[in-house]
Amino acid sequence: MSEFVSKVDKEARQRAAEILKKKFLSILDQINKGESLVLEMPRRTLENTVYDEQRKLLLLGENKVKRNFLDLNEARRFMQTTLMGSIIYDALINNEYPTIRDLYYRGKHSIVLKAPNGKTYEENTWDEQKESDSVIVDVEVLTSLLREDMLILSKEKGKLVGDMRIRSGNDIIDLSKMGHGAYSIEPTPDLVDIVDIKADYVLVVEKDAVFQQLHREGFWKKYNAILVTSAGQPDRATRRFVRRLNEELKLPVYILTDADPYGWYIYSVFRIGSINLSYESERLATSQARFLGVSMGDIFGTPKKKAYLTERERNNFIIKAKDYDIKRAMEIRNYQWFKTKNWQEEISYFLQKKAKLEIEAMASKGLKFLAFQYIPEKIQTGDFIS
Amino acid sequence: MSEFVSKVDKEARQRAAEILKKKFLSILDQINKGESLVLEMPRRTLENTVYDEQRKLLLLGENKVKRNFLDLNEARRFMQTTLMGSIIYDALINNEYPTIRDLYYRGKHSIVLKAPNGKTYEENTWDEQKESDSVIVDVEVLTSLLREDMLILSKEKGKLVGDMRIRSGNDIIDLSKMGHGAYSIEPTPDLVDIVDIKADYVLVVEKDAVFQQLHREGFWKKYNAILVTSAGQPDRATRRFVRRLNEELKLPVYILTDADPYGWYIYSVFRIGSINLSYESERLATSQARFLGVSMGDIFGTPKKKAYLTERERNNFIIKAKDYDIKRAMEIRNYQWFKTKNWQEEISYFLQKKAKLEIEAMASKGLKFLAFQYIPEKIQTGDFIS
Repeated sequence: MSEFVSKVDKEARQRAAEILKKKFLSILDQINKGESLVLEMPRRTLENTVYDEQRKLLLLGENKVKRNFLDLNEARRFMQTTLMGSIIYDALINNEYPTIRDLYYRGKHSIVLKAPNGKTYEENTWDEQKESDSVIVDVEVLTSLLREDMLILSKEKGKLVGDMRIRSGNDIIDLSKMGHGAYSIEPTPDLVDIVDIKADYVLVVEKDAVFQQLHREGFWKKYNAILVTSAGQPDRATRRFVRRLNEELKLPVYILTDADPYGWYIYSVFRIGSINLSYESERLATSQARFLGVSMGDIFGTPKKKAYLTERERNNFIIKAKDYDIKRAMEIRNYQWFKTKNWQEEISYFLQKKAKLEIEAMASKGLKFLAFQYIPEKIQTGDFIS
Repeated sequence: MSEFVSKVDKEARQRAAEILKKKFLSILDQINKGESLVLEMPRRTLENTVYDEQRKLLLLGENKVKRNFLDLNEARRFMQTTLMGSIIYDALINNEYPTIRDLYYRGKHSIVLKAPNGKTYEENTWDEQKESDSVIVDVEVLTSLLREDMLILSKEKGKLVGDMRIRSGNDIIDLSKMGHGAYSIEPTPDLVDIVDIKADYVLVVEKDAVFQQLHREGFWKKYNAILVTSAGQPDRATRRFVRRLNEELKLPVYILTDADPYGWYIYSVFRIGSINLSYESERLATSQARFLGVSMGDIFGTPKKKAYLTERERNNFIIKAKDYDIKRAMEIRNYQWFKTKNWQEEISYFLQKKAKLEIEAMASKGLKFLAFQYIPEKIQTGDFIS
């Protein structure tokens, strides 16, 4: 092993390897006992995805699936799951850091079988990465280990700055001393120790360029905030890190996106998790995240509040909603977690106005307006949607 | 102004504002002298883009364009250029950090004119961002200031780690103490001071996930390298920072991408600049960058060297080149800066084999193979293409 690998990594490996080993050894037990070989795990289907009203999370239900080796329909998936388990286990004990793409390549080959009748059969382990990715999820739900727990790395886009110190690997990093740059979140955010923090809330901005602006202007210093960007659709590490800031440090989390259904969706991924990956929301979703804006009320005003844009600004800045925006809004309106009074009003307002707005339009009124009026005023008056 | 803004930013603003002011004041001079209003700048067309053999850079040629206010065909562009100049100037003296999207919004409105004949005319300043972006480039070539010099910020994807200290804003940052994370390059890399550095070369990896792996494995510590990722197609800040590492510190720069025409293109953007933006290559391109791999010789071997992949690995890992890969390769073959013996051989080899390979296929032989054999061996033996 490289002498530079950190201690937390070594310990994480041991934990994961042990759990994996135990799980797969139970198959050997079945063989020894002469039982039929079965892998049992939660069923990952839309029907078995439930919205937990209490915890406000999308979770996998009670429904289990049994993968039976001796069932012709399931033998292939059984083989794939055990193959993937062994590849991941090998990577763990060999101190490797595979990506899901690596795992696809590592397992990709043809199994050749010479049958008793003399014929030769060939079966590919998997053909496309979509297939091996799905097998990785099987291993995750089977073992209750997330891929990050198994030291599987991935591309990361999330960044943060703020008055906090963290321990990552062998280093202590002061996230308030990043100059004009930022700290790029690591792929295994659970291995990060939060050493100390001085902050009143977390502001997550969808757009990297807006993050750069707010950072440069000293926004987080002035308002005692942790500033995060997901740089678009958030990746797993960013979601997990934001969740930890909320859960462990009790910091309120505000999400700032464009005023359109895509922005709402980004908020929703932070808050609820995605439907496809509900098995992970238990650890990745921040059920208390709030949508700070931009809201329809910010653009057009409401009976209770003045619009932030003038008539003239609206004329220049508003973008007409496209058909796919309307369609998306109609879908979102029916999601259970959007069935709050505030959200239903927001979506109706959007469908009535058929208008969307980019956050940059707010910045074009002056970055000071965005940084020192719009955002802090909305946070102070509790003008968010959840 | 926010009390948190750094001194380097204030100084950069003053420099840029002065140059802009001087340039546009010359228009007032023309008015005072009763001359016709003309803006003169290098012509930005493919015909006026020349490959400088000596400096090995794509540059704008000698050809100038004159934008004449009293020429009906040019009056609109004249108006746009002066409008953009004034918006950027305002942003500079008001301590703003606009993005190109902000600048689009800030200038977007209709100019209404009541003509002497009583009729009302309306003209939009610009309709789409493509238009305003092009006007920003006009201001850049007119003033010889890059957008970064004018404190125009943008989304940034580039990251780095390595044994170096930099000063950015008011902070000194130790890029060897980033834990498992990384330093996210700031949008104005010319405002970074390189305080000290201990490195033998710069390794730029196209893929963020591969960067994460090499970083985690301690690659840069073991080989005394600065490790950079462009996370795909490189942005301006990453290109500029890599150029500075090469030019100011004389560090060799190696680019590691997939073995396909898209990977070659990424190398080419680092090395030469893009055809559309040749006005900037003078400061952004690293004319001495070397393509480390993955090369066709690494996959299939050459008369002089053994392949890194076995026959069986090739069968499993190689991806058949698509039609667009072939087409792209034929185009690239004709670019002047690919007309070296080594590149022509590489492209011919590709066209003959019609095969491409992802860097992850190399990692799937074991991350240790990639980090501690393939990369260092190729660097040590000078096995690169340029």
